[in-house]
Amino acid sequence: MATGLVLYSYWRSSAAYRVRIALNLKGLEYETRPVHLVQDGGQQHAPAFQALNPQEMVPCLLDGDRVITQSLAIMEYLDEMHPELETALLPVDARGRAQVRALAMAVTCDIHPLGNLRVLQQLEAEFGASEEQRATWSRHWMAVGFKAIEEQLSDSAATGRYCHGETPSMADACLIPQVYNALRWKLPMDDYPTIARIHRACNELEAFQRAAPEAQPDAP
Amino acid sequence: MATGLVLYSYWRSSAAYRVRIALNLKGLEYETRPVHLVQDGGQQHAPAFQALNPQEMVPCLLDGDRVITQSLAIMEYLDEMHPELETALLPVDARGRAQVRALAMAVTCDIHPLGNLRVLQQLEAEFGASEEQRATWSRHWMAVGFKAIEEQLSDSAATGRYCHGETPSMADACLIPQVYNALRWKLPMDDYPTIARIHRACNELEAFQRAAPEAQPDAP
Repeated sequence: MATGLVLYSYWRSSAAYRVRIALNLKGLEYETRPVHLVQDGGQQHAPAFQALNPQEMVPCLLDGDRVITQSLAIMEYLDEMHPELETALLPVDARGRAQVRALAMAVTCDIHPLGNLRVLQQLEAEFGASEEQRATWSRHWMAVGFKAIEEQLSDSAATGRYCHGETPSMADACLIPQVYNALRWKLPMDDYPTIARIHRACNELEAFQRAAPEAQPDAP
Repeated sequence: MATGLVLYSYWRSSAAYRVRIALNLKGLEYETRPVHLVQDGGQQHAPAFQALNPQEMVPCLLDGDRVITQSLAIMEYLDEMHPELETALLPVDARGRAQVRALAMAVTCDIHPLGNLRVLQQLEAEFGASEEQRATWSRHWMAVGFKAIEEQLSDSAATGRYCHGETPSMADACLIPQVYNALRWKLPMDDYPTIARIHRACNELEAFQRAAPEAQPDAP
């Protein structure tokens, strides 16, 4: 299927990882254009990329001449452009859609922004935060966020093999990259058995395996 | 119109402010239940509220027995439950929807989480950040974010009187509360003429005026 989709991505970017999962779940082929977030002072700040996405961030999706930014906006766009039910990233009912979006945003608004590379760099620059302090900071927000998500998942009748029912959704596409970060930062996952179970279930799927950082063309 | 909507809100919460704007734009009546984020060690942490929203955050919307959390998920829900075109919070075309969502998320994912009360409290606790350092931190992320949003708005042919065309959208509902915060933190707005212009246009509308922090029942 030649869709002409191009994804500006960085192998270890959590937000790009979400979109790679979504593209794979929807069965859409795409070309990866790596943007190295550290080399050359951060290739996302280069004028050519900045012209494409003034936010100077990955992911950024090209669909023909359309430039789509923000991982969740990209996933919603893909779901609207390719509305086939069997690969839907959101359920059909408004309540279920709200639940999936809220879980996704519990990651994308309340955990991930606080442990981002640029934020850790700023903590070092402004407060002289050591590597250990930066790790403690990251783990703190992941622990706060995962505690709430664990409760939401374990309390909800809608939770199934995945975050919402028996098929992976936008919520799983956001949660799994965050768990990847948590393991990288050595956050103990014992307190989050439902999240850990869903993480295992997702990673049995090829769509998630192919989206993993280590499987990317720009992984070292 | 008796919709039975209940909004758990705090007058100065930027995320609750967004949802108040959205409810007003859609012409939906609702009951406000104030949750004081500072008093009593933060009423959002009280067991009764925590049972409702494990994230211990406002806003939280009750629609009958449905509990909807996360400001953007609430706005998407309201738009899906009340799809009348004349009060739509998103345009009809997928590209336009993606642009509006991306603008909204440039605020909700990339600016607002970093200047949140809980984050400033953590900066103080972990790094002994002074009030001036916390203000500098907040202004830094607003300046970075507004610069990108200003470029996106001034570059896009879709920008009109409001963030997207001639009617206010979800993007405006996110941007205006962030500008309110920026003014509170004394960020100079001279570098963001398009944002400042849209801020003025929105605040001429009753939907935005009635949603303002100072107009809330729990404002001091």
